[in-house]
Amino acid sequence: MKIQIILGSNSDMPVAEKAIKILDKFSITYDIKVASAHRTPSHLKDLVEKSKADIFIGIAGLSAALPGAIAAHTIKPVIGVPVSGKLNLDSILSIVQMPPGIPVGAVGLDRGDNAALLALEIIAINDKKLSNELNDYRKEMKKKVLSK
Amino acid sequence: MKIQIILGSNSDMPVAEKAIKILDKFSITYDIKVASAHRTPSHLKDLVEKSKADIFIGIAGLSAALPGAIAAHTIKPVIGVPVSGKLNLDSILSIVQMPPGIPVGAVGLDRGDNAALLALEIIAINDKKLSNELNDYRKEMKKKVLSK
Amino acid sequence: MKIQIILGSNSDMPVAEKAIKILDKFSITYDIKVASAHRTPSHLKDLVEKSKADIFIGIAGLSAALPGAIAAHTIKPVIGVPVSGKLNLDSILSIVQMPPGIPVGAVGLDRGDNAALLALEIIAINDKKLSNELNDYRKEMKKKVLSK
Amino acid sequence: MKIQIILGSNSDMPVAEKAIKILDKFSITYDIKVASAHRTPSHLKDLVEKSKADIFIGIAGLSAALPGAIAAHTIKPVIGVPVSGKLNLDSILSIVQMPPGIPVGAVGLDRGDNAALLALEIIAINDKKLSNELNDYRKEMKKKVLSK
Amino acid sequence: MKIQIILGSNSDMPVAEKAIKILDKFSITYDIKVASAHRTPSHLKDLVEKSKADIFIGIAGLSAALPGAIAAHTIKPVIGVPVSGKLNLDSILSIVQMPPGIPVGAVGLDRGDNAALLALEIIAINDKKLSNELNDYRKEMKKKVLSK
Amino acid sequence: MKIQIILGSNSDMPVAEKAIKILDKFSITYDIKVASAHRTPSHLKDLVEKSKADIFIGIAGLSAALPGAIAAHTIKPVIGVPVSGKLNLDSILSIVQMPPGIPVGAVGLDRGDNAALLALEIIAINDKKLSNELNDYRKEMKKKVLSK
Amino acid sequence: MKIQIILGSNSDMPVAEKAIKILDKFSITYDIKVASAHRTPSHLKDLVEKSKADIFIGIAGLSAALPGAIAAHTIKPVIGVPVSGKLNLDSILSIVQMPPGIPVGAVGLDRGDNAALLALEIIAINDKKLSNELNDYRKEMKKKVLSK
Amino acid sequence: MKIQIILGSNSDMPVAEKAIKILDKFSITYDIKVASAHRTPSHLKDLVEKSKADIFIGIAGLSAALPGAIAAHTIKPVIGVPVSGKLNLDSILSIVQMPPGIPVGAVGLDRGDNAALLALEIIAINDKKLSNELNDYRKEMKKKVLSK
Repeated sequence: MKIQIILGSNSDMPVAEKAIKILDKFSITYDIKVASAHRTPSHLKDLVEKSKADIFIGIAGLSAALPGAIAAHTIKPVIGVPVSGKLNLDSILSIVQMPPGIPVGAVGLDRGDNAALLALEIIAINDKKLSNELNDYRKEMKKKVLSK
Repeated sequence: MKIQIILGSNSDMPVAEKAIKILDKFSITYDIKVASAHRTPSHLKDLVEKSKADIFIGIAGLSAALPGAIAAHTIKPVIGVPVSGKLNLDSILSIVQMPPGIPVGAVGLDRGDNAALLALEIIAINDKKLSNELNDYRKEMKKKVLSK
Repeated sequence: MKIQIILGSNSDMPVAEKAIKILDKFSITYDIKVASAHRTPSHLKDLVEKSKADIFIGIAGLSAALPGAIAAHTIKPVIGVPVSGKLNLDSILSIVQMPPGIPVGAVGLDRGDNAALLALEIIAINDKKLSNELNDYRKEMKKKVLSK
Repeated sequence: MKIQIILGSNSDMPVAEKAIKILDKFSITYDIKVASAHRTPSHLKDLVEKSKADIFIGIAGLSAALPGAIAAHTIKPVIGVPVSGKLNLDSILSIVQMPPGIPVGAVGLDRGDNAALLALEIIAINDKKLSNELNDYRKEMKKKVLSK
Repeated sequence: MKIQIILGSNSDMPVAEKAIKILDKFSITYDIKVASAHRTPSHLKDLVEKSKADIFIGIAGLSAALPGAIAAHTIKPVIGVPVSGKLNLDSILSIVQMPPGIPVGAVGLDRGDNAALLALEIIAINDKKLSNELNDYRKEMKKKVLSK
Repeated sequence: MKIQIILGSNSDMPVAEKAIKILDKFSITYDIKVASAHRTPSHLKDLVEKSKADIFIGIAGLSAALPGAIAAHTIKPVIGVPVSGKLNLDSILSIVQMPPGIPVGAVGLDRGDNAALLALEIIAINDKKLSNELNDYRKEMKKKVLSK
Repeated sequence: MKIQIILGSNSDMPVAEKAIKILDKFSITYDIKVASAHRTPSHLKDLVEKSKADIFIGIAGLSAALPGAIAAHTIKPVIGVPVSGKLNLDSILSIVQMPPGIPVGAVGLDRGDNAALLALEIIAINDKKLSNELNDYRKEMKKKVLSK
Repeated sequence: MKIQIILGSNSDMPVAEKAIKILDKFSITYDIKVASAHRTPSHLKDLVEKSKADIFIGIAGLSAALPGAIAAHTIKPVIGVPVSGKLNLDSILSIVQMPPGIPVGAVGLDRGDNAALLALEIIAINDKKLSNELNDYRKEMKKKVLSK
């Protein structure tokens, strides 16, 4: 199973890094590319259609059309991450308010980490080992909270 | 593979019916229950923890804590559907803005249909037949749009 | 000079009709099609790339990616019309907040009429007759306001 | 009478400190714990159910489910404090817009001080000495305002 | 123990009736008056200062100054209920965003019922019988949810 | 003719200073006081009722009840200035959305200068000299803009 | 003293009627015209510049430029009334957020009545009889509230 | 063909510079002036009416009446650029929500660059050379994105 991360712009890299940190921790294969729904639409189409990825993560700000544009070219699950800016409601609503028929699952503002975790949870449905690791990760997280 | 749909309140049923219509069309097994994060938290916990479901869909309005509360009790993927009301931004932001570590994938306001389709896309990763059916569904959808 | 109107969904027709009424009044050639950025992206690309139109009008609601998706495939001017719904800020911000490099000119919520008038103003730059007609239209409009 | 302060995350401590400063000033017993509605739901349930506290103060940001989750496990009064972040409307609406049956009393953004004062006012209903002290505090406050 | 309900305007009565229904169910004494922070400020002051009530519930829409104005004249706990209208954010933010020193506990839009329940929870701190009744009410509520 | 400026809090002084600068420039008599609608309501009432001022300017942030509270105690014109903070919509909507019967004229966020100018315009209705000075001020302003 | 009411559009008449009802009650002379900042800017300029009115009331919806456009042509006080529509925040913010130097006093959404009352308060500064009548009006209003 | 850029205030210059940079790159003639819809309305009218420009770009913040005021005086296409500030929704909605009959094409917050590009696209309709240059610019842009 492979995850394809796509950034709408190079400036979204700090949000992508939160995803990468999680994926590396769980030793999951991923590929990361910059491809814009608006500036490189054909490249984005090719990238998505030729991809062997099982899950896509689209990270974008402003009128964040990227996750929806990915979803338009694949029936693989697409997770969208709105990136913060001057308004914030723009990227959130652009990603959440998809029309019927083309789903995107949106995580919170700048939550690259949660996008990665949601992808891992999808993979773990059929991967007992990863499932156990995710359970362990939750336990660690609980310990950290309770130690405060 | 099974899907567990949970409604925060009986009044969210019309949104759930959009999900059911899609799941029935693709002959996917699902269970549907009303369980509130606020009014029946222990029952919700039991329901989630004992569930054999591979994917959860939480449907709720207002301070829509339900999808996040489901996610708190499972490492299975959780899809959240904000239900419309007097404000709309309340249910959307409550579901989207999850803290790091506990992911929920939010679909659009009242988009029970897209929640079901996202669940199907997750199942289809390892189900060639369903994958083909989803591709066919997209083709039908395109035909319908183009016939206008 | 020709105008291509594209609707994201058949349900956006009432907004398109406001545009058509204006274009008919000024006897301007236009073509109107339904094509979705999310449901028929390749068709949309073909439609835009093969179009002989000089100006595009994209009409869409929710996460209104359509005008931006048109703009991604052409260097012809694109006018975007946000369609009203349960939130309204979603379609407005999705259309207005385009990233640098790919411009869309947004008009007001459900303002198909203003989209058509802006298109006419663009054509009129090099069309003295239309320019005069637009001036006359403004005069009529003033008379109507002042007669109240 | 005892107050239980619960923080959704260690990063909410500055807001809790405003509450503590007030409670210390009035020599009221309190306990403070970090417990997350999403990351440690069972621990939160135990903490709330086993607590001897008469009043709960829940402090949380983002999709601030904590005060509502506390309220789900107790019939003691729960005061919710939304913590500021990139959006602010997310934590406010998540705490204010509770469904019928499970009340939370929300104070303003980052207003740990007002949460503590509201708790003191509740205790003072049956505590003449504290009631007098609160009246004196108001008088001091007035003096401070009028000396400006 | 007595509860004083104050409405900013006669038109807020439907929201007050939700509170009354709850208070009647639990046989709690209350008084209900219309008194406006803006139209009858002196009367409001007198009403609050002379009141023997232990808890105040202020119900108001628009620039909902009423709960804050009540709180300005008493150190008894004040619960504020924002009433819905054309904007909704106006009454919510007016009631929630109180300055430091004068707390109001806000419940959700039109949630007269939750205001009453929060008041009951406050009274129940020192009233074992009411405490039991509130626990029973929660159980009934759970049964109703689970029967769906 | 005299103007009474009232600040809800000492921290609103920078906004008041914009008003003072304008009033000083036009040599208009004013008095400035800190008085809170919530912390010193009786003092505010006295201040307003005993004031010989012809116009009131109320400056406040958060749930900015001050201008409305001034208006509740006088039939003199009240100008309200919302002060910026973490939300901004809170102070704007609290001041703008007054109920029928008790008017407040709201100027923009932090616009102490415009509050003073509006007060001057009111005085100038019956003051030819001031009227001329305001016209001169506008001319200066135009010159400054045009010199850019 | 005379009041000039200007409507941005004939459709704003119901809001103007609330103002008229108040002005008629107090037998104040007014003139009412439809004149648009966008459709009849020169007419609006003439209307404002030639007007003998002491106070202007501008009533407009959407991008409600009218009150600001009136203020741009006069140093008489201008009161702005935002008219409700699909968004509401558009007309409110367009009227409230005037730049430094050109003040407008905004009243609440659709509050033609409060615009008229604010105008009366301005006139009453130098009109003892009207001042008494306004005080009487407040007393009536109080009686009405207290009789509920 | 010529472009007239108008700034509502000198402080909007950084946004105008983004437009200038684009226009200079394509060697397009432009003129830039500061002229306020509120502070210099007659000058603005003269500037617009006497202008030989084919396209106008209006840049303004707050209650951004400038683009609409330009449009009120010309039937040439007007592009509006909302400038960011404390609220952002104020300038966006003021520019987008124009009434029927007077169109403005709004670009994103602070997007002077996109306003210039949209103007270039309009000119390029009848300018094969510029059209080619715009296509080349898009190609460069794509290369830059893909090189990341």
